[in-house]
Amino acid sequence: MTTSEKGVCAPKGFRTAAAAAGIKKPDPDRLDCALIVSEAPATVAGVFTTNVVHAAPVRYCREVCSGGVARAVMVNSGNANACTGEQGYADTLKTAEIVANLLDIPPEQVCVSSTGVIGVPMPMDRLEQGIKQCAAGLSDASGPDAARAIMTTDTVPKYCSVELPLTQGTVRIGAMAKGAGMIAPNMATMLAFITTDAAIEAPLLQHMLREAVSRSFNCICVDNDMSTNDTVLCLANGLSTISVAPDSPDCARFAAALEDVCVSLAQALVRDGEGATKFVAITVTGAANDADARTIAAAIAKSQLCKTAFYGQDANWGRIAAAAGYSGVVFDPTRLDLYIQGVHVLAAGQPTAYSEAEVQESMKQPDIDVTLELHDGTGAATFWTSDLSQEYVAINADYRT
Amino acid sequence: MTTSEKGVCAPKGFRTAAAAAGIKKPDPDRLDCALIVSEAPATVAGVFTTNVVHAAPVRYCREVCSGGVARAVMVNSGNANACTGEQGYADTLKTAEIVANLLDIPPEQVCVSSTGVIGVPMPMDRLEQGIKQCAAGLSDASGPDAARAIMTTDTVPKYCSVELPLTQGTVRIGAMAKGAGMIAPNMATMLAFITTDAAIEAPLLQHMLREAVSRSFNCICVDNDMSTNDTVLCLANGLSTISVAPDSPDCARFAAALEDVCVSLAQALVRDGEGATKFVAITVTGAANDADARTIAAAIAKSQLCKTAFYGQDANWGRIAAAAGYSGVVFDPTRLDLYIQGVHVLAAGQPTAYSEAEVQESMKQPDIDVTLELHDGTGAATFWTSDLSQEYVAINADYRT
Repeated sequence: MTTSEKGVCAPKGFRTAAAAAGIKKPDPDRLDCALIVSEAPATVAGVFTTNVVHAAPVRYCREVCSGGVARAVMVNSGNANACTGEQGYADTLKTAEIVANLLDIPPEQVCVSSTGVIGVPMPMDRLEQGIKQCAAGLSDASGPDAARAIMTTDTVPKYCSVELPLTQGTVRIGAMAKGAGMIAPNMATMLAFITTDAAIEAPLLQHMLREAVSRSFNCICVDNDMSTNDTVLCLANGLSTISVAPDSPDCARFAAALEDVCVSLAQALVRDGEGATKFVAITVTGAANDADARTIAAAIAKSQLCKTAFYGQDANWGRIAAAAGYSGVVFDPTRLDLYIQGVHVLAAGQPTAYSEAEVQESMKQPDIDVTLELHDGTGAATFWTSDLSQEYVAINADYRT
Repeated sequence: MTTSEKGVCAPKGFRTAAAAAGIKKPDPDRLDCALIVSEAPATVAGVFTTNVVHAAPVRYCREVCSGGVARAVMVNSGNANACTGEQGYADTLKTAEIVANLLDIPPEQVCVSSTGVIGVPMPMDRLEQGIKQCAAGLSDASGPDAARAIMTTDTVPKYCSVELPLTQGTVRIGAMAKGAGMIAPNMATMLAFITTDAAIEAPLLQHMLREAVSRSFNCICVDNDMSTNDTVLCLANGLSTISVAPDSPDCARFAAALEDVCVSLAQALVRDGEGATKFVAITVTGAANDADARTIAAAIAKSQLCKTAFYGQDANWGRIAAAAGYSGVVFDPTRLDLYIQGVHVLAAGQPTAYSEAEVQESMKQPDIDVTLELHDGTGAATFWTSDLSQEYVAINADYRT
């Protein structure tokens, strides 16, 4: 598997463009519109926020996905179009219509996605200018720019692509994502757009996307807050002429590659988490089942006290054990083994004679590994989380004002 | 109802003492042992952490409470006696035995409670010296000192008392509590000790205590982390000679007073929350039922993004609506009314034409009120939470090291 710098344009027949439309405020240097277009109709799958309070484009994209076909995705940053009522929904429909007219495609095949401030009406005149610029500037070299245009508090653009040799030939998967705050473990708070030139029927694509998301974007945590706009879309345009059929060896290979792409971007989101100075992998093994392992890993990944300890480079296993203990999963604490940076700090629920200095030194690394073994079965799961720093607080106390 | 400064010594027949035993580290100025003694055997009720990983004294106190009678409570700060294995439990039994021998009472009537660092063996020799000092110094004027001795990261001692006129005469309730971090909404992370000279059978006392805790200590939130040591104990020694019988008017009055005492201390815990600069009351009304209202209020109270916005004095209703939306309760967001500091900021799910400057000015107050009306029924609940400040992160990144 190789990666290229083309992002969502790596697969055949996808072009993109970015524009600075001043959605949040006029700034000619800040890209805030991105358009992805497929030459041919693509099957489409989507996974969305489960928040009751969801944005107009989420409601709209669910409908596009239920149709199973898409040609384009229009994304803006700077305005989430959430809590904007029926006007917000009308603005989303209007956005799709503008794109459709410019590209001469059916409006019901245009996905729309928004991220940014909640509760502010979408500035449709400025957005329309941005859409026009994008439609006029489509190219297969704009993947990185598009990834930049969907950023909000992100500090780096996130995109990747892979080439995947299958039985009949090679297909490509490209992707980009954004999200640095409002990252919660149940449908991570972010936007991600994935393209592929494989030919995949919509139901299979939906199934594979949902599985991949459950082990990637739904296993990360920055601040436990689930956004109103979370969206992962995957478009498969078939232009490689290589088909991925259900239950074939190629299907398993494609699903694994899709999961790799999602995990790679999910980890990039955590690394760029607001104020993050650490990237922490929490692995739980030996649980009664995978769901229990996941629940415990999530509790630790979400714990403010664990996250501040990671920030403080403190091997505070007491907080980790306490978070596992309140996760809701019943386990025997006297059988708990805990490893921090590979050092066995807790054996059968009690501290070992480990060297505190050694572990602390090791926690100065930007990457921290925490592993819990419950000795109760074969269930396992990994969550990725950031630490909680003073910088996080500063960023979020000042966000709107 | 009047309050006095005597804390747990306000009811007849309760004496207390505090000592500096150097449990965590030698410091002659830091009180870290407190002993509460009742002249006569008291009925006892307890509510404890639901954490699977719980401390030895929690396991032990559950047994004392199942016996229904207690004469004394021995508390230490500086060491939680959690994750200390069978030795930890043996140390707790030994603590009760030392107290029992000194006071000439049955050891199974001695409650033991600990708070502090997890995973460190209890220094029994130093604790024994502390117990001896306490047993020799019992008085009815040491309530404030005892409240000071159970503090960890608390910055102020928390105690209160009330006199309650009942049909046959006056009874008194006294109480003290500690806790500033590891405060979670499901069995708050803290210790609280309540005394009364009313005569109340143990089952009724247990029922009233559980009810009071559910609407006080279980409705507060500082950092969502549930501790291994949460304990609320209530001792009723009957020395007022006034009985509180089940289903009597006095019973309702006593239950209300007990809840008032618990709410008062619970609010004091939030006000003294680690790094807290704001005291925020989250009230949800118009929910389908009280449980739904509670779930939504808890989600907002726990949200890192809401808490940083409170810190930033930012009327960020988008984050509040988003937290309500992911709480798990299904409601109609287009009927949501939201008030911040009494200002109607969201009507039927959309922003009103309120003055941002006015609300921001009002949020400079240390107390912030947030009210959500769902227009879906008569369910209501209030949660109390602190803000999330950079100081919180500094405190918890540095706690152990």
